[in-house]
Amino acid sequence: MSQFQFDLHHTDAHSRARRSTFHTPHGPVEMPAFMPVGTQGTVKGLTIDMVRETKAQMVLSNTYHLALRPTEKVVKELGGLHGFMRWAGPILTDSGGFQLFSLAQMTKITEQAAVFRSHIDGSLLELSPERAIQIQEDLGSDVAMVLDHVIALPAEDVAIRAACERTIRWAGRCQAAAKRPEQAQFAIVQGGLNPKMRVWCAEELAKLDFPGYAVGGLSVGETPAEMYAVLDEVCPAMPVNKPRYLMGVGTPQDLLNAVRRGIDLFDCVLPTRNGRNGMAFTDNGPLKLKNLKHQLDTQPVEAGCPCPCCQHSRGYVRHLFMADEMLGPMLLSAHNLTYYQRLLTGAREAIEQDRFVQYYDQKLAGWKKSTEAAA
Amino acid sequence: MSQFQFDLHHTDAHSRARRSTFHTPHGPVEMPAFMPVGTQGTVKGLTIDMVRETKAQMVLSNTYHLALRPTEKVVKELGGLHGFMRWAGPILTDSGGFQLFSLAQMTKITEQAAVFRSHIDGSLLELSPERAIQIQEDLGSDVAMVLDHVIALPAEDVAIRAACERTIRWAGRCQAAAKRPEQAQFAIVQGGLNPKMRVWCAEELAKLDFPGYAVGGLSVGETPAEMYAVLDEVCPAMPVNKPRYLMGVGTPQDLLNAVRRGIDLFDCVLPTRNGRNGMAFTDNGPLKLKNLKHQLDTQPVEAGCPCPCCQHSRGYVRHLFMADEMLGPMLLSAHNLTYYQRLLTGAREAIEQDRFVQYYDQKLAGWKKSTEAAA
Repeated sequence: MSQFQFDLHHTDAHSRARRSTFHTPHGPVEMPAFMPVGTQGTVKGLTIDMVRETKAQMVLSNTYHLALRPTEKVVKELGGLHGFMRWAGPILTDSGGFQLFSLAQMTKITEQAAVFRSHIDGSLLELSPERAIQIQEDLGSDVAMVLDHVIALPAEDVAIRAACERTIRWAGRCQAAAKRPEQAQFAIVQGGLNPKMRVWCAEELAKLDFPGYAVGGLSVGETPAEMYAVLDEVCPAMPVNKPRYLMGVGTPQDLLNAVRRGIDLFDCVLPTRNGRNGMAFTDNGPLKLKNLKHQLDTQPVEAGCPCPCCQHSRGYVRHLFMADEMLGPMLLSAHNLTYYQRLLTGAREAIEQDRFVQYYDQKLAGWKKSTEAAA
Repeated sequence: MSQFQFDLHHTDAHSRARRSTFHTPHGPVEMPAFMPVGTQGTVKGLTIDMVRETKAQMVLSNTYHLALRPTEKVVKELGGLHGFMRWAGPILTDSGGFQLFSLAQMTKITEQAAVFRSHIDGSLLELSPERAIQIQEDLGSDVAMVLDHVIALPAEDVAIRAACERTIRWAGRCQAAAKRPEQAQFAIVQGGLNPKMRVWCAEELAKLDFPGYAVGGLSVGETPAEMYAVLDEVCPAMPVNKPRYLMGVGTPQDLLNAVRRGIDLFDCVLPTRNGRNGMAFTDNGPLKLKNLKHQLDTQPVEAGCPCPCCQHSRGYVRHLFMADEMLGPMLLSAHNLTYYQRLLTGAREAIEQDRFVQYYDQKLAGWKKSTEAAA
């Protein structure tokens, strides 16, 4: 019997929002869930105890970055990702497909593999579906993502179709390359902004019976409305009895919109990246802590938030940023990650009680109150 | 009755090492004690909970830095330093004298005040003894340091004597300026490397009956042997029934050498600064975590250390530094501060049991084992 199991508990009566549990060898993930991003084997600015205190259940780490440095062999020697980071819960690793597209200087892509230059030292490297799986098996994550072919949008239908077809063939090769039963693979649906292509790709991948499915190639410059339109089409085409993961998304508003359309899992650098830049997410919309108006503000960033930032005043947090102290980014990263977890905890409760749409409306109304634009 | 009290419990049978408790309005400090430095109202790289977990009892913050940014008025509005940092224990603030000497571009020093240019924006400012006390009263620290006149070493005897005399007169003016009974002032003994001047300065200041005394103007380029020679002379000239604070010192070896000569209190940026640079203090001497030899090392930085760093492998910590991740400096700063607290906890126990000299010998033998030079 598989160590992975997906239990769909309930679907909201007035939307497609789902309440589920995904079981892994390192424990369950209550969904909908948000994964903090630990690109290089660390969630930027937080100790692993602080990550745990945000109530994160599962973390993501990046195959591309770790394969380049310190290399998957070093991570394996140091206990795999769980031992390396000292994270006892579930871990998901991406395949490197997105970083080949966004970070590396890709030099050639063939049916066999992507050839690219490292963004660190310019060395020439190759990433094939088989190699992407071998790296992730060495990293020892609970969930490995298949290697997909991400392309820039907008693109011609013929290019989107070719990338989809390759993504499907590569998914099969990833599946065939798997050696570790304690690692599940999720396939990735591509197809750009073309709804027919997305549905076709989802249906083709469904035939391969992966333990989970992701929507990839979004959050690459399209509008939120375009992204939501894709989700409207693609979610119903994805298997009901498998977790659905929307990769690299997004703002709090994006998360609730995607949950509403049937997405179960997310990851995004926004809470930590914006935190490092002095921006806080709250139920009353974003705060920019560097603003002078916070100088003498004795309120916490958000009243009632249990994070280590919210025991301090906004004035103190502002001072940390003005004085260029590490603690500013550390505290706002912890706050934002805690905020995301609180947002999804609330979403899970709302779905259970068939009031997700109210929850959505209430959160959106709060976010619109802010007079400070999001970064 | 004063809210400050110094209880001298025991003096080691074979050295001048003292075991004592200093009581403050924010709780007791078991001495000998080490204060982590929170220059700008934050101990660099640690949340305030992490500072507490190092077992630090009292923290230091810098008047010069806080007066320039965010200003003492802002700190006062935000609850004083205790509310600002959310540190419930005792806080000591320095007077700014040392930073005038080391950081600011001092433009003129007269009997009235030091005139200097801010290192942040070049603006012209004045620091008199009265102003140094007013700032520290606004900051709300438990212990305020008097404004002293620090001079560069080596110096002519006549210059050292003039600085000493001014330091004594300024100490009297600081005392006269005090308005808050919940703040104690410590006087600062100057006198360069001239033992007679040091003793004379200590005796003159003793007449003013301060609740505590510091040795200042050391750790400014002299050799350890020169510093220890000054302590040999000056400690016996300082009041027995008052805490003795050696400012800005030092390495673990310096701390034990000073405790042995009768010093009770320390502060230094070394644990955090070296931590940020990849250097760890251990009982077996310093480790440089960036060294290649730690790449595959599954051992913690120091076995048995309860700090958040030592739950990880050396290999992981090395990776964090190579990948330029914030967590590297965070973890090694926490480790080094925990190491300093462990060192002084051990010293207190050793003094109580009249085996401080053995403790000293044992630690020194361990530190000499290292093949990696200290930073």
